[in-house]
Amino acid sequence: MAGVPIYRTGIAPEWIDYNGHLRDAYYGLIVSYAIDALMERIGLDGPYRQRTGCTLYTLEMHIHYLREIKASDSVLVDVRVLGADRKRIHAAFELLCEPETAPAATAEVMLLHVRQLEAVASEAFPPALSAAIDELQQAGAQHGAGGPGSRRMQLPQR
Amino acid sequence: MAGVPIYRTGIAPEWIDYNGHLRDAYYGLIVSYAIDALMERIGLDGPYRQRTGCTLYTLEMHIHYLREIKASDSVLVDVRVLGADRKRIHAAFELLCEPETAPAATAEVMLLHVRQLEAVASEAFPPALSAAIDELQQAGAQHGAGGPGSRRMQLPQR
Repeated sequence: MAGVPIYRTGIAPEWIDYNGHLRDAYYGLIVSYAIDALMERIGLDGPYRQRTGCTLYTLEMHIHYLREIKASDSVLVDVRVLGADRKRIHAAFELLCEPETAPAATAEVMLLHVRQLEAVASEAFPPALSAAIDELQQAGAQHGAGGPGSRRMQLPQR
Repeated sequence: MAGVPIYRTGIAPEWIDYNGHLRDAYYGLIVSYAIDALMERIGLDGPYRQRTGCTLYTLEMHIHYLREIKASDSVLVDVRVLGADRKRIHAAFELLCEPETAPAATAEVMLLHVRQLEAVASEAFPPALSAAIDELQQAGAQHGAGGPGSRRMQLPQR
């Protein structure tokens, strides 16, 4: 494992496509639920969102599909905070089909803290959130990178 | 529009999340359905898959979230084939909320043609498929890039 365990899920039958395994987009749904779990973990939860009108928006998501995930699999997601600034979190996730140790997928996301008023505007994290993000980053800092990171896509050059 | 129209969809109510707009992963589901439409378009359809045991696997997907998509939106997806080789397709998609002309999201994917036997192995496209891919690539070739492409993610350097 290359990060802090953050989310665990089974596979819903309707997530399986005509290829007999998890449809590509549902790997992304598992990442999305893991982002929700990350938000809970750092205190960016429902009551916080209600009270402040602030939430996270996903700016980018890059998924690498490494192995098929089957209907019978149980997926553990771990997270590493790769970086953060006043209002952004750059995070990496691994999807592991237990008890396998090689990831079935890896993902990177860029998340932006925003306030949803009439217009949506980016907003700095309050100190308690920044501290919780730092703490989560430290907790995953001893882990090395798990699998390929985000990158420019291109066909192999020959 | 920066490509060939390939897929059109409304937004299912269950795709809306606590932020009041389309959950990040469901942008990916729309891209996934657009990949299905791309497969139909080039002849990589159900009968082909049945007859040959061959299909496409997604190797990577990189989505840029540019604007919120709402429950009432109707989304048009266009595609450009950025490149292809003997067994891979590199494609770019735009999600447009009609009648807006600026994309709500862009995505790039790398797709691999595989044969699903007991083991899964990559396989060259048959000539008819390669010709159809070329044709689709030509049809989108006059269009410029629409929005940011895939890239390494990183926080702004200061």
